[in-house]
Amino acid sequence: MKIVLVGGNGTIGKKVKESLQDTHEVITAGRNSGDIRVDISDKNSILKMFEELKTIDACVCTAGTGFYGDYYSMTEEDMLPGIQGKLIGQMNLVLIGKNFLSREGSFTLTSGIASEHPAKNGTAVAMINGAVNSFVLASAQELKNGLRINAVSPGLVEDSFERYKGLFPGYNLAPMSKIVNAYILSILGAVNGKVLKVYS
Amino acid sequence: MKIVLVGGNGTIGKKVKESLQDTHEVITAGRNSGDIRVDISDKNSILKMFEELKTIDACVCTAGTGFYGDYYSMTEEDMLPGIQGKLIGQMNLVLIGKNFLSREGSFTLTSGIASEHPAKNGTAVAMINGAVNSFVLASAQELKNGLRINAVSPGLVEDSFERYKGLFPGYNLAPMSKIVNAYILSILGAVNGKVLKVYS
Repeated sequence: MKIVLVGGNGTIGKKVKESLQDTHEVITAGRNSGDIRVDISDKNSILKMFEELKTIDACVCTAGTGFYGDYYSMTEEDMLPGIQGKLIGQMNLVLIGKNFLSREGSFTLTSGIASEHPAKNGTAVAMINGAVNSFVLASAQELKNGLRINAVSPGLVEDSFERYKGLFPGYNLAPMSKIVNAYILSILGAVNGKVLKVYS
Repeated sequence: MKIVLVGGNGTIGKKVKESLQDTHEVITAGRNSGDIRVDISDKNSILKMFEELKTIDACVCTAGTGFYGDYYSMTEEDMLPGIQGKLIGQMNLVLIGKNFLSREGSFTLTSGIASEHPAKNGTAVAMINGAVNSFVLASAQELKNGLRINAVSPGLVEDSFERYKGLFPGYNLAPMSKIVNAYILSILGAVNGKVLKVYS
């Protein structure tokens, strides 16, 4: 299977790549690294990526983040980069990529636990994750040619603990092996229109 | 109680107004009608509205819509007006309005059934509704001074049936009396951080 992994050098992406690369052709894509450069906040960059890839069987996105910070001083401007990247960017991967994916191909997007268990200072990310989940539910009904789509919704990722622990007091660690399995289930399984929650 | 009702002349808004106006001071706000003009897609217009209102006890939004149309030809540009209005606009009502609301005041936003039961051609609206719901969950944790926030998530609104029936085959009608009650529960009750679903 030919798989493009957007965010393939990130915390999750590199582990997903490791688990797939021996048996599949994995092409990493990222803004600053990877086999191909793509900026998901720019739809023209997404189109260019798919045109370069030509055919592809699975498009996985582990890229994109959102604003964390004080709610009382947060403004629209703080939220916009996350909206343009993790939200609109992931949607554009699907809206543009659907015209390039092989029959019975799949999309796997990334949302997160914040959609239903938001952390303090994480309202912007919660909102984006909720949007991605509902986008996936709706898109699964619309995609043709046997295309599937799912979202993986990770909790506090084990490998990110040192970096993020201050932001998520009281959150259980989600083992990386389970998170990787959720991506594998979406890519190689038959599930469709699911939010695959890996919270602990 | 002094209540501002954004979208107060819409299908839902006018019924919410009717149920409250005998016992409360209800100020309607809208882009083209109402006691006050506001364009929720413009944060400066929102700020101006709250500055004119001075103190307010409850801010209710029944305004905002999103793109309905063919998924395969839908683009980012189709989705942007809904993102700027029903999504960012409702968020800005809260982010800006929280500095103007009375102690123990409340926000009531509007999402919709599409977040979990999207209709064909309704992916853009599904995404927005999912975002609004998660924004409300997160905001309820952050608001101070006893402020509350909830979302009302209506199904296919009884009074909109003639207009929308073609878009929602097989959806049950949500009685307007129940939908109005959900707004009343949010405004006058003690519920906080809830998505009040009125699907049938």
